[in-house]
Amino acid sequence: MADLTHLDANGGAHMVDVSAKADTAREAVAEGRITMSTEALAAIRAGNMKKGDVLGTARIAGILAAKKTSDLIPLCHPLMLSKISVDFEYEAKGIRVEARVRLNGPTGVEMEALTAVSVTLLTLYDMAKALDKSMIISDVRLLSKTGGKTGDYRA
Amino acid sequence: MADLTHLDANGGAHMVDVSAKADTAREAVAEGRITMSTEALAAIRAGNMKKGDVLGTARIAGILAAKKTSDLIPLCHPLMLSKISVDFEYEAKGIRVEARVRLNGPTGVEMEALTAVSVTLLTLYDMAKALDKSMIISDVRLLSKTGGKTGDYRA
Amino acid sequence: MADLTHLDANGGAHMVDVSAKADTAREAVAEGRITMSTEALAAIRAGNMKKGDVLGTARIAGILAAKKTSDLIPLCHPLMLSKISVDFEYEAKGIRVEARVRLNGPTGVEMEALTAVSVTLLTLYDMAKALDKSMIISDVRLLSKTGGKTGDYRA
Amino acid sequence: MADLTHLDANGGAHMVDVSAKADTAREAVAEGRITMSTEALAAIRAGNMKKGDVLGTARIAGILAAKKTSDLIPLCHPLMLSKISVDFEYEAKGIRVEARVRLNGPTGVEMEALTAVSVTLLTLYDMAKALDKSMIISDVRLLSKTGGKTGDYRA
Amino acid sequence: MADLTHLDANGGAHMVDVSAKADTAREAVAEGRITMSTEALAAIRAGNMKKGDVLGTARIAGILAAKKTSDLIPLCHPLMLSKISVDFEYEAKGIRVEARVRLNGPTGVEMEALTAVSVTLLTLYDMAKALDKSMIISDVRLLSKTGGKTGDYRA
Amino acid sequence: MADLTHLDANGGAHMVDVSAKADTAREAVAEGRITMSTEALAAIRAGNMKKGDVLGTARIAGILAAKKTSDLIPLCHPLMLSKISVDFEYEAKGIRVEARVRLNGPTGVEMEALTAVSVTLLTLYDMAKALDKSMIISDVRLLSKTGGKTGDYRA
Repeated sequence: MADLTHLDANGGAHMVDVSAKADTAREAVAEGRITMSTEALAAIRAGNMKKGDVLGTARIAGILAAKKTSDLIPLCHPLMLSKISVDFEYEAKGIRVEARVRLNGPTGVEMEALTAVSVTLLTLYDMAKALDKSMIISDVRLLSKTGGKTGDYRA
Repeated sequence: MADLTHLDANGGAHMVDVSAKADTAREAVAEGRITMSTEALAAIRAGNMKKGDVLGTARIAGILAAKKTSDLIPLCHPLMLSKISVDFEYEAKGIRVEARVRLNGPTGVEMEALTAVSVTLLTLYDMAKALDKSMIISDVRLLSKTGGKTGDYRA
Repeated sequence: MADLTHLDANGGAHMVDVSAKADTAREAVAEGRITMSTEALAAIRAGNMKKGDVLGTARIAGILAAKKTSDLIPLCHPLMLSKISVDFEYEAKGIRVEARVRLNGPTGVEMEALTAVSVTLLTLYDMAKALDKSMIISDVRLLSKTGGKTGDYRA
Repeated sequence: MADLTHLDANGGAHMVDVSAKADTAREAVAEGRITMSTEALAAIRAGNMKKGDVLGTARIAGILAAKKTSDLIPLCHPLMLSKISVDFEYEAKGIRVEARVRLNGPTGVEMEALTAVSVTLLTLYDMAKALDKSMIISDVRLLSKTGGKTGDYRA
Repeated sequence: MADLTHLDANGGAHMVDVSAKADTAREAVAEGRITMSTEALAAIRAGNMKKGDVLGTARIAGILAAKKTSDLIPLCHPLMLSKISVDFEYEAKGIRVEARVRLNGPTGVEMEALTAVSVTLLTLYDMAKALDKSMIISDVRLLSKTGGKTGDYRA
Repeated sequence: MADLTHLDANGGAHMVDVSAKADTAREAVAEGRITMSTEALAAIRAGNMKKGDVLGTARIAGILAAKKTSDLIPLCHPLMLSKISVDFEYEAKGIRVEARVRLNGPTGVEMEALTAVSVTLLTLYDMAKALDKSMIISDVRLLSKTGGKTGDYRA
């Protein structure tokens, strides 16, 4: 059966050795979605129209979170990310978030993109939670991954 | 139309004033789910049986993340959390995570419980990502909230 | 001669004992200014008009920094801030920043307001530094302070 | 008109892509100044004479802050700084601070040097604030910058 | 047999509930020691005589670390520490460190005092490691603890 | 007499310049020990048998702490660690901890290994402190170091 790479032979968690892996150009794109009531979505759209501070705050939270990934996810390596972007798309019942992260480095940046998406969505939740307590964050997943020896991936 | 509490009259984001709110006993419970392939789920179950370091690592990540909430979500208040727990339930196609947070304080702890759930799920994702790149984090939502003047909530 | 409260009798730095001080309502307001070229200021104004992400990013940086004050300034106490806001005013040769912080607690929040101002200004600098390397951050000072036994202060 | 590099084509903030930039040797030097009353300055000088803990504390705060730059300034890249120093100069009405930062990397370290200066000055402010509430932090600016394709700069 | 309070009934780690515990005045004092070669100790003493930056740097590191305790030790509660001090004593073969922490709060501050001692000692190690790679940190322990319902303790 | 590398010519602390040092493969191994009562040790062993959450929690704390080294020890360089592992050995009167850290980089990782050991031990202390307040952390030292121009070291 397949083994988990984050466990050593005895089952102990460790941050795996990437010292023999060469730096390559890597990119990961992830997405996620928050679903909310019509009223909450309308309030976000209206609130954002004034100064852009609803989506703008969530975007900055996501960018900062990508840089904190190795402090949040215990077995992630610290990485010198070379690009982070977060974009939004209004949908009928909520907002879709997409994050893109790049690195020249020894390991992939999927977790950084997923962390950016998750924290961006949590920040949107925080913005609207006084209006709707039944919002749901879902569909957080990897859209694509390029670079590294395991090859490219597209959802 | 309803306004967002996190925006001031001009639409600027701010951390809202809770200085006039009394401390009350508060609790929030949140949940979320990660869906993965049969192979990845089997590897997590098998890997965890050795030392417990798969679920244990994810649990600690979630507990630590709850304490970082005000550093991750820009408009959340720093809070002296008095209890954090994270529990797991194996499901047919993945793992359900539930987090419970308590506070004696001036504002609710929904975001802390949701942050604990999200980072716990991201850590599970990280554990299994070499086996399955199509995992999905979903159904992240508030289950209940007690305390505070807006009254109790149950999903 | 007056002594520094942050030094003990032997001259060693310490975080002073506030355990005997009662919690009171406190507020501090601080300001600061960044001066830049006409071109850089025009670019900030134009760039901000699109989505508000120039001033919005700087505001969020300042709010988050206020919450990190006790991690940045070694002898500051950790404090449960109850309100943080950051505002901007365009001037002829730059931008004025004002931060307002509130606390119910045992010690003042001057450093939190000044830290918010400083990091907001540094973020504005970062935004425009490709256009003007001779910008200057200045006039960072306390505007007012209320609460606490030493009485109120106004600049 | 000139555009801000930290905004994408639609005006959204992002951490710009430096993945195509080669690592080069870079250095930035920044300075700043705190002005205070004669009494406060005398207290700092006298307090520092005992154990050096006034300037020493401020210096360590500045060095640590330089390493936190990408966590404080949202669109700054995480960088593996190779040298940080902070120096002081007593002046007639206050103290001048100078910080020097080096990196072999893909982008400049101006923000790291300016952040070190700002937090060093805030720590000095904190030391003397019981004696003088009208201190002013000013003249925070870049003195020089070398390395990178945009060429050297000297104020 | 005695149970560990940090585990729930099923053996899962959790941050225990202190919401029913009243705030009381608490203090903890901890100590520890670093042993080093005569040459390394002499270099520290001589180096410190110039500006005090050897012991001063270690002291600040310890004070800052006490404030990070709940971020370092996963099951520790975030606490609003009201006092932190770190003192040094030269010994024949090294340096003894003592840390004192106070809190008005619902749980003890032993871990905060022990964390301050440990990080202070690690910083001294870092200072002298080019001269002596066989230094040993030892005798890190609690000296006393007052406040709270379990009563006082003295070593 | 030997000088401390972390002090400049005037005795001021600085983060030394490693910009001229080439990246090489480096490894450091450190150990430490916690001594406790028979009852406390038995409780840890029994508690750990259920889900592994005692040693597992301490291991994750140590791994995360290694990644925070440059934020804890003021003059340490930020480093992109490529591997971190933490192992345990039950002894007659306590538990021995060993940490191993690897890097391809310009400076050694002794402090990262020692920090991992110290925080792992502090977390074990936290687990058992309700049962035994006289535990002692000791024998924290470097076991070996390879890579870099100063040559290898073995204790």
